[in-house]
Amino acid sequence: PVDTVQWSAEEAELGGFPHYMLKEIHEQPGRVADELRRVLRSEEGTVEFDSLAPHLDELASMRRFILVACGTSWHAALAGEYLIENLAGLPVEVECASEMRYRQRPFEEGTLVIAISQSGETADTLAATRLARQQKVRTLALVNVVGSTLAREADWTLYMRAGPEIGVASTKAFTMQLLQLTLLALWLGRRRGTLSRSEGRRIARALKAIPSRMQRILAAESRIVRLAKKYYRFTDFLYMGRQYNFPIALEGALKLKEISYIHAEGYPSAEMKHGPIALISPEFPSVFVIPRDALYEKNLSNLEEIKARNGPIIAIATAGDREIRKKVDDVIYIPPTLDCLQPLLTVLPLQLFAYHVALLRGCDVDKPRNLAKSVTVE
Amino acid sequence: PVDTVQWSAEEAELGGFPHYMLKEIHEQPGRVADELRRVLRSEEGTVEFDSLAPHLDELASMRRFILVACGTSWHAALAGEYLIENLAGLPVEVECASEMRYRQRPFEEGTLVIAISQSGETADTLAATRLARQQKVRTLALVNVVGSTLAREADWTLYMRAGPEIGVASTKAFTMQLLQLTLLALWLGRRRGTLSRSEGRRIARALKAIPSRMQRILAAESRIVRLAKKYYRFTDFLYMGRQYNFPIALEGALKLKEISYIHAEGYPSAEMKHGPIALISPEFPSVFVIPRDALYEKNLSNLEEIKARNGPIIAIATAGDREIRKKVDDVIYIPPTLDCLQPLLTVLPLQLFAYHVALLRGCDVDKPRNLAKSVTVE
Repeated sequence: PVDTVQWSAEEAELGGFPHYMLKEIHEQPGRVADELRRVLRSEEGTVEFDSLAPHLDELASMRRFILVACGTSWHAALAGEYLIENLAGLPVEVECASEMRYRQRPFEEGTLVIAISQSGETADTLAATRLARQQKVRTLALVNVVGSTLAREADWTLYMRAGPEIGVASTKAFTMQLLQLTLLALWLGRRRGTLSRSEGRRIARALKAIPSRMQRILAAESRIVRLAKKYYRFTDFLYMGRQYNFPIALEGALKLKEISYIHAEGYPSAEMKHGPIALISPEFPSVFVIPRDALYEKNLSNLEEIKARNGPIIAIATAGDREIRKKVDDVIYIPPTLDCLQPLLTVLPLQLFAYHVALLRGCDVDKPRNLAKSVTVE
Repeated sequence: PVDTVQWSAEEAELGGFPHYMLKEIHEQPGRVADELRRVLRSEEGTVEFDSLAPHLDELASMRRFILVACGTSWHAALAGEYLIENLAGLPVEVECASEMRYRQRPFEEGTLVIAISQSGETADTLAATRLARQQKVRTLALVNVVGSTLAREADWTLYMRAGPEIGVASTKAFTMQLLQLTLLALWLGRRRGTLSRSEGRRIARALKAIPSRMQRILAAESRIVRLAKKYYRFTDFLYMGRQYNFPIALEGALKLKEISYIHAEGYPSAEMKHGPIALISPEFPSVFVIPRDALYEKNLSNLEEIKARNGPIIAIATAGDREIRKKVDDVIYIPPTLDCLQPLLTVLPLQLFAYHVALLRGCDVDKPRNLAKSVTVE
């Protein structure tokens, strides 16, 4: 097949930004908008996947999914699990590639393995995909780099279309992974009938509003700079979220680890009572991803337990939520959207926060110590 | 059914130990030995589950398992996944209870949900079990407390038989969860024919040697006290392991969090290259669970990358492994056993390490701040 993803030379340059990471953070609304224009069929409330066109019947016949990845891509996979289960009613498992590849994991009939890797060269993800292929399981590569090994070896390929990502800490590749998994879940839901046309149109409408909402978050960067100045001296953070935002808590924590060398750890909000809450003190801040979604009240009660132990809290909350101000130390507001699209917005302030904290700590944002852009060794 | 688990009054007393946690750590060999005597059928290389006797045919007909739990029990579930997949060839998924209960997770036919909770009262685990029951899915409770809500509500019950656990940080309940899941995997493997009689006998023989090997680890406590003295002032730790020992890395880190308020985080060894390695410095020690198993060489290459960044390393390694001494700062040796039984041994030094570090830091080991023994709220 002819691969039609085009990258221009200037895309790989800084274009006035001080770092690739910041440039790539700011590219996210444009990348999402371009992709939505390309594939979203708003009238029908569905998606057109050109690269998968010859395989759509087989794709629709899949009965379960295994999403396999490492690092940031593994976080996108976790969000993909919720998306596909909730929108398409199909069971999904997420596997850490380095663990899956050495197990005697039985593959049931009707399983599609979706391997996610920005570079398409991640050694463990490649090996896990080969293992699945040896057992005659269908594989779909979700990659950014055209012609990469994973794209060549998998049965089918879906491109992230993030454009070249130079910063070692992944940002726009992550949101494009999220977007592609959202689109896949929407397509599956519409095709399988778990989503009606009107439900599909409602999601499509909300998707089309995402780029301008992303812009609004990025436009409020100065607020995040102020927060970074307040918090950059802390050495440990807990990040929490539920459901669609649990993977975002993991991803926000990973960004802070990668570029600012702060020990940040992500957890599903409710799990903190099973141990992590013992860490909480005025020296140990928490970041709560707590938009006004179906689990807002549950999340709030977890948040209040942290506050009762005098832990400083930054909340990522929905614009208009004034109550939350009284319960936390700082709030970053994001515009409202559907629950299933929250991750596309909530991750942005966490990327910016990590970026500005790293700058204040004098870290080399684009080339963090000890890390490589693609992990091509095991 | 008549519940036959008996707890005596003196079992709930300290019996000369300074803390319940230490007493319960030292009870592990005896508890494991008692249970093996009760249920192991060494000649046949299998297990006899009296409480499940009327349901064995149905149990054997199950085609997939979902293990659901919180906290420490969730770590046992992760080890259970590897055990059941490898010994019985059946697909297993592990779910965090607080996340599963709010998802529209489809349950496929032939699914058994195994809910794991020491108290049998964990609110989120109970709710997840009720969700499964509403959808007519079979449920098995793996609990310690007889007559607990989970035991009453699930279709079938398997008792951990750990005896009363008073220390807030779970130790013997965890090893008994591991043991029961190992026994279940062995029974399933023998019954389904994925394990031959001679393979079953081999595992049974290795199981019978576990209590005395546990004793040997506990007898070397003074070595762990020395290590605790060397490391207790560090504020952050990374714990790593692969396959059967990945959940043990998580559990070792959780123990340190719970009772010493040190920010310790667990990871699958190979994932560290995708971010956590940026944290490594001479101020950030790692604990590597690296017995001589099938993945020893892979684990070793991960370990060497940490060492190259000058991170102090404590290795949990197999007795006789002299090579490892040259690569790490400190070693705790454990006796050899089969790969699938490693977790029953490797977790012990990590429990003792957390205990002694907490003592040196002046923490209240049996009643850590902010934590409750059973999390009966959401």
